[in-house]
Amino acid sequence: MSSKFPEYTDVLDAAERIKAYASRTPVLQSSSLNELLGYQLYFKCENFQKVGAFKFRGGCNAVFSLDETLMKEGVATHSSGNHAQAVALAAKMRGIPATIVMPENAPKVKVEAVRSYGADIRFCPPTIQAREEGLKAVLAEKGGTEIHPYDNFHVIAGQGTAALELIDDFPDLDAILAPVGGGGLLSGTAITARARSSSINIYGCEPEQADDAYQSFKKGHRITDVVPNTIADGLRTTVGELTFPIIQQKVSDILTVSEASIIEAMRLIWMRLKIIIEPSCAVPVAAILLNKLPLPKGQKVGIILTGGNVDLDKLPWMD
Amino acid sequence: MSSKFPEYTDVLDAAERIKAYASRTPVLQSSSLNELLGYQLYFKCENFQKVGAFKFRGGCNAVFSLDETLMKEGVATHSSGNHAQAVALAAKMRGIPATIVMPENAPKVKVEAVRSYGADIRFCPPTIQAREEGLKAVLAEKGGTEIHPYDNFHVIAGQGTAALELIDDFPDLDAILAPVGGGGLLSGTAITARARSSSINIYGCEPEQADDAYQSFKKGHRITDVVPNTIADGLRTTVGELTFPIIQQKVSDILTVSEASIIEAMRLIWMRLKIIIEPSCAVPVAAILLNKLPLPKGQKVGIILTGGNVDLDKLPWMD
Repeated sequence: MSSKFPEYTDVLDAAERIKAYASRTPVLQSSSLNELLGYQLYFKCENFQKVGAFKFRGGCNAVFSLDETLMKEGVATHSSGNHAQAVALAAKMRGIPATIVMPENAPKVKVEAVRSYGADIRFCPPTIQAREEGLKAVLAEKGGTEIHPYDNFHVIAGQGTAALELIDDFPDLDAILAPVGGGGLLSGTAITARARSSSINIYGCEPEQADDAYQSFKKGHRITDVVPNTIADGLRTTVGELTFPIIQQKVSDILTVSEASIIEAMRLIWMRLKIIIEPSCAVPVAAILLNKLPLPKGQKVGIILTGGNVDLDKLPWMD
Repeated sequence: MSSKFPEYTDVLDAAERIKAYASRTPVLQSSSLNELLGYQLYFKCENFQKVGAFKFRGGCNAVFSLDETLMKEGVATHSSGNHAQAVALAAKMRGIPATIVMPENAPKVKVEAVRSYGADIRFCPPTIQAREEGLKAVLAEKGGTEIHPYDNFHVIAGQGTAALELIDDFPDLDAILAPVGGGGLLSGTAITARARSSSINIYGCEPEQADDAYQSFKKGHRITDVVPNTIADGLRTTVGELTFPIIQQKVSDILTVSEASIIEAMRLIWMRLKIIIEPSCAVPVAAILLNKLPLPKGQKVGIILTGGNVDLDKLPWMD
């Protein structure tokens, strides 16, 4: 770690570090979707990743980056969802303790998953303040290393390994699309893609109703007072202090999409690719559906499908 | 075609014939499912096949097996679902006419798909008699070759190519499981698997409430008077005259499962593998869930997931 910001070599290190633990996920294509949407699309299926989301890459890289002294004290984080599972599973794999602060309204299935990985769960009221205070208390009590879900050097480098595999498989992509919430995936993707090609277009995709990264990108500084109201629950976080400068420097543009288009795109992927993706994944597909991608039709476009953890009893098109 | 029954060489010929048109589907594994179910499971994802089902293999092989004279007259079949789409798409790919007799209550989405492939659709009342009469009338009017959905030499050989790819990828499987409806997939699978290994166990899996193949297997002759009442809509057909003798000779046993276990297994696959499968695919998984597989835990078991065409507005666990 030579600088505050991870670089391409850090992504390569991460890939080597997590190789034995993370899945190399498949890339799916569909001729019917290509015909419908007008691009040659390459879907990187992180919904098939361990814990059902790309988050495992970053969590795993952070946990396995700890030195022998630090690792003994264990790791801690606060999360209601996929990052909690990612850190808990990675800690289990390394044989070190993990404490996860979870809001008391976290989905039961995610709490059960974190518990099944042997993590110590501390419940707190469902506010960001309570979560941060809960985490502070845990670190004061137990020591250990905090693993932030996106503003963390090793997490960003780990998330960049999804794009690395995609570009290794398909080196001549014209563009790569990823959703943006806290920006861990988008910044990691941008580090990888920009290092591999100076001409590739890199787009972040974001719900209109949680467009803090879009606003920040346009205004040139972080906007942190957006109140998110989107079905894409993975994208309700605010773009980070560490991730935003990377995005500013390396990303081509940020595209925003409506809630209705997210649901339509999610259903389209379920129907045509026969895979289960969560609403956040559908955001880049929605941008294409809405004809917002400023690229000639027929170009080769990689899309990172971020995860598949959805409540199968409550699908958005059934309301 | 040296005999009435296809043999392993016919499956190899089929694989060569359909190679340029059908997808080589991926095989998925899940460590959490292996742990839960006690076997090393290899899921052959025919839900990712063209038209969303293995049926394309058989339909494609039959269409591309026609000689130059026969092909000009085109093909015809009756089907409400995946076989209709398979024949229509294969005919489009070969550039020959296809006529599909469909019951007037066929799902609109499947009618649209068949139409989008350019097939001539003839609607008929939703009974098997009306469908067969409708097909006879089409053949009398237009000529052409009937492609039966399972009692057809080339269809059976084509369906056997799914198991061929699975065994090529994982040559040391202890067992292979496939659902049985008309028996095209199971007989093709059995021809392939038995030719490749004299010791491999081959199981057909069937809903208790549509157990004509089970009854036929146990009694040693075809039972055709079972009235099916199962959510596994792909398995409501009666085991065929051509497929049954192959199943009798090569299959180890037929396992039956309850309706509740089919729904539970379907949901489990959606949750853990993050893929969309139709109820028929869940039948072999249900047999394992119910502990009906008479094999030592830990063995390597291949499962053919047959298709992914489901109505996303009406999921069975939401009733």
